[in-house]
Amino acid sequence: MFNKYNVIVVGAGHAGCEAAAAAANLGSSTLLITMNMGVIAQMSCNPAIGGVAKGQIVREIDAMGGYTGIIADKSTIQFRMLNKSKGPAMWSPRTQNDRMRFAEEWRLQLEAIPNLDMWQDTVKEVIVENGTAKGVITSLGIRIEADAVILTNGTFLNGLIHIGDKKFGGGRTGEKSATGLTEQLVSLGFESGRMKTGTPPRIDGRSLNYALMEEQWGDDEKGRFSFTDVPLPTEQRCCWITYTNDKVHEVLKTGFEKSPMFTGRIKGLGPRYCPSIEDKINRFAERDRHQIFVEPEGFQTVEIYVNGFSTSLPEDVQQKALRLIPGFENAKMYRPGYAIEYDYFPPVQLDLTLETLKVKNLFFAGQINGTTGYEEAGAQGFVAGVNAHQKINDLHELILKRSESYIGVLIDDLVTKGTEEPYRMFTSRAEHRLLLRQDNADIRLTPIAHKLGLVSDDRLKKVQDKIDDSDRLVSYMKQSSVSPIEINEILSREHSSPLTQKSKMFGILSRPQINIRHIAESNTEFSTLLEKYNEETIEQAEIKVKYESYFEKEMEIVNKMKKMEDKEINPNFDYSSLTSLSIEAREKLLKVKPRTLGQASRISGVSPSDISVLMVHMS
Amino acid sequence: MFNKYNVIVVGAGHAGCEAAAAAANLGSSTLLITMNMGVIAQMSCNPAIGGVAKGQIVREIDAMGGYTGIIADKSTIQFRMLNKSKGPAMWSPRTQNDRMRFAEEWRLQLEAIPNLDMWQDTVKEVIVENGTAKGVITSLGIRIEADAVILTNGTFLNGLIHIGDKKFGGGRTGEKSATGLTEQLVSLGFESGRMKTGTPPRIDGRSLNYALMEEQWGDDEKGRFSFTDVPLPTEQRCCWITYTNDKVHEVLKTGFEKSPMFTGRIKGLGPRYCPSIEDKINRFAERDRHQIFVEPEGFQTVEIYVNGFSTSLPEDVQQKALRLIPGFENAKMYRPGYAIEYDYFPPVQLDLTLETLKVKNLFFAGQINGTTGYEEAGAQGFVAGVNAHQKINDLHELILKRSESYIGVLIDDLVTKGTEEPYRMFTSRAEHRLLLRQDNADIRLTPIAHKLGLVSDDRLKKVQDKIDDSDRLVSYMKQSSVSPIEINEILSREHSSPLTQKSKMFGILSRPQINIRHIAESNTEFSTLLEKYNEETIEQAEIKVKYESYFEKEMEIVNKMKKMEDKEINPNFDYSSLTSLSIEAREKLLKVKPRTLGQASRISGVSPSDISVLMVHMS
Repeated sequence: MFNKYNVIVVGAGHAGCEAAAAAANLGSSTLLITMNMGVIAQMSCNPAIGGVAKGQIVREIDAMGGYTGIIADKSTIQFRMLNKSKGPAMWSPRTQNDRMRFAEEWRLQLEAIPNLDMWQDTVKEVIVENGTAKGVITSLGIRIEADAVILTNGTFLNGLIHIGDKKFGGGRTGEKSATGLTEQLVSLGFESGRMKTGTPPRIDGRSLNYALMEEQWGDDEKGRFSFTDVPLPTEQRCCWITYTNDKVHEVLKTGFEKSPMFTGRIKGLGPRYCPSIEDKINRFAERDRHQIFVEPEGFQTVEIYVNGFSTSLPEDVQQKALRLIPGFENAKMYRPGYAIEYDYFPPVQLDLTLETLKVKNLFFAGQINGTTGYEEAGAQGFVAGVNAHQKINDLHELILKRSESYIGVLIDDLVTKGTEEPYRMFTSRAEHRLLLRQDNADIRLTPIAHKLGLVSDDRLKKVQDKIDDSDRLVSYMKQSSVSPIEINEILSREHSSPLTQKSKMFGILSRPQINIRHIAESNTEFSTLLEKYNEETIEQAEIKVKYESYFEKEMEIVNKMKKMEDKEINPNFDYSSLTSLSIEAREKLLKVKPRTLGQASRISGVSPSDISVLMVHMS
Repeated sequence: MFNKYNVIVVGAGHAGCEAAAAAANLGSSTLLITMNMGVIAQMSCNPAIGGVAKGQIVREIDAMGGYTGIIADKSTIQFRMLNKSKGPAMWSPRTQNDRMRFAEEWRLQLEAIPNLDMWQDTVKEVIVENGTAKGVITSLGIRIEADAVILTNGTFLNGLIHIGDKKFGGGRTGEKSATGLTEQLVSLGFESGRMKTGTPPRIDGRSLNYALMEEQWGDDEKGRFSFTDVPLPTEQRCCWITYTNDKVHEVLKTGFEKSPMFTGRIKGLGPRYCPSIEDKINRFAERDRHQIFVEPEGFQTVEIYVNGFSTSLPEDVQQKALRLIPGFENAKMYRPGYAIEYDYFPPVQLDLTLETLKVKNLFFAGQINGTTGYEEAGAQGFVAGVNAHQKINDLHELILKRSESYIGVLIDDLVTKGTEEPYRMFTSRAEHRLLLRQDNADIRLTPIAHKLGLVSDDRLKKVQDKIDDSDRLVSYMKQSSVSPIEINEILSREHSSPLTQKSKMFGILSRPQINIRHIAESNTEFSTLLEKYNEETIEQAEIKVKYESYFEKEMEIVNKMKKMEDKEINPNFDYSSLTSLSIEAREKLLKVKPRTLGQASRISGVSPSDISVLMVHMS
């Protein structure tokens, strides 16, 4: 009943939505299949987007024409730029979001994309012929053909929900799980594993005493993820902070004997950096309190998300413990916290394009690859969507470098090293993080997306203007000076030592206490000049001036490593004949099939001497 | 972990939401339990509220302080007063609604009600002790105590979805079914049965050619359900009409051999008056076309509901047939139509309060009683919610008479006659329908709700003002005359015969061609008087004048029957000793336990001579 599609995307979460949008926007006829069209793009866990390293990923997706940033902006109930007091590489945008609005905006966005069809059904099988994906078969028994298939099944594959000693099948609470697909993929030779994640209870906000908590508002000047000028909601809502205490921990411990985590009923590994509250009090027994972020689920709803209190303890223990937290004395739960176990496929089975190594034209993105986080999922979805289109049209593949994006780091990490616990992005994972900033995501990536045809000429021009204009401002500051009489009063006010002679603006701006507005304050000509530029350009110029030397040093490192990163390895390279490689290295290299010497060097178990052997044989 | 509640409501559909709201508003601590708090108050079938007889029910719910009308008003994308060309008893308000907005507004409404808690879980068992409901046990194994329990499980009890020869468990498509509860109730001695309902495919509106269909807009002057002044959306959206044809029917017939309806796989009876398209072409083989209403699912979404094309034929047959309908040549489906079978409990097992006869303080409302329709469900939910509160507080029960409301007709029909196919309200079911109009629902029922404490003094006063003011207008028209010179020109323009002498306004307004505005046009004093009254009052006065004699005749009939309706039967009346009753009558009377002689007379199998026997023994 369906014509053949170019691309089929299975699952409409954060990965699936970005994948389908990207493939369709590039011109592929695309079918997005979801089990329930009523629950597209759910924020299954916290009602927030971005944060440290994750916010940068959202900016990168946005810079390339993805939608996560736009949807987050449209549904923002509060925006904060985290780490504003640190260097710009650490600045990380984060929003609290209206959960319902977020899902609705994604749904409407998908509906507005030409070439993008949707179908409500459950995929039971990928059609594979001659080692190539050719479509899917659904639970209705429908055979839908396609040139490429992208699986973004999230936590639905054999999803199993745990609350205390109770367990039941489900992809999210209240929703069905998906069965059959894992089994088929395993029969095709894929390895699968189990992972676990969890979510906290949801509370009736009317039952909380906010007077006992600390208020947390967003930034006064509302920022945004998107480089486009999507309109932002005008209101914002307050969040709150409170803390657990010894009594809370004591009560939680009474549930440990029924905890699916501690009794071994849950086999899958959970996210180390987003542990459950029982994990926290178990692993950090010395800490007498943990922070709890009390987050509203939307503009109007009274439902509250208890960030920091993820748990799969029995629901009565959850409630008893919650009620010992200041402000939660009378807390009424709407839904209990729970843990969910699901199937994933260790991502070393993927190429850097997110195509599987075993089956051609089959791509995996999101939690199915062992990641956690909406942002990580969205990024993979975007890349898989692009590469599915590029592959079936014999076009250039999209492989982002570690030195040009967090997304590159994410995918290289997954594909090269694999992961045995839910993988979350951190700034520390990016060796070139100084260069991978939220402020320059457009400069780094919009030109690449423009080449692919994903962003308009206008958008590219805007980026080029930002580069040119900020460079112009920097040169101006390199050439122009201010005199002691102009600026000394300002310098002293800002606790910076006075000038003794005329100095270049550039030098003065390098001082940590001084920002570009101070210079403008001192000099009318410069102040008039600044008025001609938008905020983003001015910020960019300021960052360039203040951190230029660091950026240059980092670029030198990048360039040094470039030789290794650019040295391509023939995909059919015969490692098995290279007896001078260690056995472990040979096995791993055969499995990962690295694209470059650089990638090969990051495989765990491949030593520098193995790399030397490879270099010798390749030259 | 839960304190004891006064009332637990199981299920958060149209019945459950009204039930929980009513009980909580009366002051009962109330817990609403739903399988998924993300999908409260779904319009599982068409995105519309009201219509013939159903619109009257919504007005009745609203007149008593229920919320269906308010929620429908807030989410209205189009309003029409149906049958405006007929007598006022037939006027029926109907809205098309934004499906997402409707659900969201209900959710926010519930959140705003004090005493009303919510909990996401699945109820497996009703706790029954000494023949009295005492609470529920959930799938998490939680025991929650309550004084009364209301079951509103909709289509979820052992829900089984059929599409062609495929079937799978589910309460709605994409959602889980609920198991265990039917089995427990049966073990307690309840009879259960199977029913079936269905829904049409949903379409990507971008794939339709609207130029080939007839536009259908709402009324220019936007009406409303609610007697309160809830703000209405400012925009409206267009619907369309198109038709099936012979070719469509031929294609549909090719699917009959796989139809779960015709192969006997579906055992439950479906709604006779809302048949599937395959039913229609099977039962009305002489008709060469059927009307299709093309309804948008919301203000912004492109998703389209194909009203009139409910089907459980294989999805490829659905699509092939759809594409032969004018405007649907390239129709793309989002979701296939499907049929769903579910458990219901024949409602003769209930008292007129909707309490079960077998288990005290246990109430059933909605589809579980064998009804169909959001409005029928909402009405029962409201009545059950009120009566649960009243019962556990030893307060007066709410039993609406057949002569004062459609809701009275609905419940009396269900409880007295039972139903073997999904019960839908029609004007023809109400013998006193002349009195049960949408325009006077407030006059009929707001005083009753005020006595219960469900509506404010202000609302009652507004109704009393409407009565007094319209009476005042009617008296004025009975006393005041217009002269031929004042009105003859207007009469001739409206094709009504001229006056030959001064006549009372009352008499002139009785003429079918003449409305109250024409009289005002003829007479400045009256026109000035009218300005003092609101639209509703003026309309009420006009209806009173035009139809007074009919209403009086109807009231006479009501009064004649009152004797029977008021003659109460002792609930412990010993029918078995009355050997002069027919055996069938004895059995049925024992089962239904009628409250009054009137109710007894409506039981099928109870003859007029049985009623005479009863009358003799009761006097």
